[in-house]
Amino acid sequence: MIGKKVWVFADGDLPPHPEGLGEPKAHEALMVVNYGAEEAHLSVELLFEDAGPKEDLSLTVPPRRVKCFRMDMPIWDGDYVIPFGQYAMVLTSDVPVVAVFGRLDRRKDMAYYPVAPYTE
Amino acid sequence: MIGKKVWVFADGDLPPHPEGLGEPKAHEALMVVNYGAEEAHLSVELLFEDAGPKEDLSLTVPPRRVKCFRMDMPIWDGDYVIPFGQYAMVLTSDVPVVAVFGRLDRRKDMAYYPVAPYTE
Amino acid sequence: MIGKKVWVFADGDLPPHPEGLGEPKAHEALMVVNYGAEEAHLSVELLFEDAGPKEDLSLTVPPRRVKCFRMDMPIWDGDYVIPFGQYAMVLTSDVPVVAVFGRLDRRKDMAYYPVAPYTE
Amino acid sequence: MIGKKVWVFADGDLPPHPEGLGEPKAHEALMVVNYGAEEAHLSVELLFEDAGPKEDLSLTVPPRRVKCFRMDMPIWDGDYVIPFGQYAMVLTSDVPVVAVFGRLDRRKDMAYYPVAPYTE
Repeated sequence: MIGKKVWVFADGDLPPHPEGLGEPKAHEALMVVNYGAEEAHLSVELLFEDAGPKEDLSLTVPPRRVKCFRMDMPIWDGDYVIPFGQYAMVLTSDVPVVAVFGRLDRRKDMAYYPVAPYTE
Repeated sequence: MIGKKVWVFADGDLPPHPEGLGEPKAHEALMVVNYGAEEAHLSVELLFEDAGPKEDLSLTVPPRRVKCFRMDMPIWDGDYVIPFGQYAMVLTSDVPVVAVFGRLDRRKDMAYYPVAPYTE
Repeated sequence: MIGKKVWVFADGDLPPHPEGLGEPKAHEALMVVNYGAEEAHLSVELLFEDAGPKEDLSLTVPPRRVKCFRMDMPIWDGDYVIPFGQYAMVLTSDVPVVAVFGRLDRRKDMAYYPVAPYTE
Repeated sequence: MIGKKVWVFADGDLPPHPEGLGEPKAHEALMVVNYGAEEAHLSVELLFEDAGPKEDLSLTVPPRRVKCFRMDMPIWDGDYVIPFGQYAMVLTSDVPVVAVFGRLDRRKDMAYYPVAPYTE
């Protein structure tokens, strides 16, 4: 069982999509590794600067897989999309997982911004 | 209660603001997540290379919120602004929080520099 | 004995090689420090999004050395090469080591993407 | 007493200095925070890929200060300079400190590469 059940990424901020640019597209993404033999169920909570939390979001990672979730896509059950602006993400998994989070900004050329994870 | 009460960011160095550039502006920022139910009060101390520490700075984060503090702005009580040059930041919070720190440098195109947090 | 025996890098994704570009080449690399007096033997397992794990890969680091492994090269025994697309890497060493992982993307200029390590 | 006594940075690789570029210069740097009341004395050891370690290097950080050490400069006692190519750095301090390490590559525009610290 490798990993932790709680992961916090304190700096989400979806980058704008400049028109006319090719690949790779500006985005933020969450990568989750499930090294174990059971499917991982993640409860996701989003915090904002000037509004209450968005709760009741969930993600699933099959056993022995890594999944890449695009934060600018409707990846959740239902059609919720994350609004532009500052947010933070708190993940709670029922089994240990390993997560990383990063942004690709294309407003001027191309800039990667990895967000340091906090876990416990 | 998710987080830690002590956070150190060892490499602050406010980037210059080249003239004539549009968004996003060069800056450094501190993001703090307060996942708990009580307001977080942070004591902030700045260390420098050739001068004594700047003490008695403070920041506040409401419960269940993330806040983004722009280090080049007068975000503190009073009108203190961080001088250009090397500095480090030591945060002490009265409740557990999660913090990340990053720089956006615009001197040539656009470069993100995230600073690895130390916590205890 | 400095280091840990388990290291996970949750976000591998080999960048394409644009034609006509000089050095430095787009790539991903794993750096492993063996500070101890014994050779380090690393078992490497790769996880994917839509396929089962690749197991039985191994790497070796001499005592008192750092080694840089280029992930786009046939660095393993045999001629296995990592396919394009999302992957994650789980390292298990027989002695404590320190590892970091990073990407250099050249699709537009040059962008470094370091992947936050998880260790236990 | 905030910090740790052992810090490892697994990926040093001094970037070349392209001619004719203005500030900021390509470089690698080590930032060390000494939050305590006593001067910090750091023993530094460098590891390489194909040569034995360089030992007996030392650095000093005054109490209540942050210091930025430029890795491409003769920052050590004597005139030792780090050779080009892969290296790793192991720091051992007599008092707890906090350290971060980063590279600025200027071969194409400007790219920051922060190296994830390992500490114990």
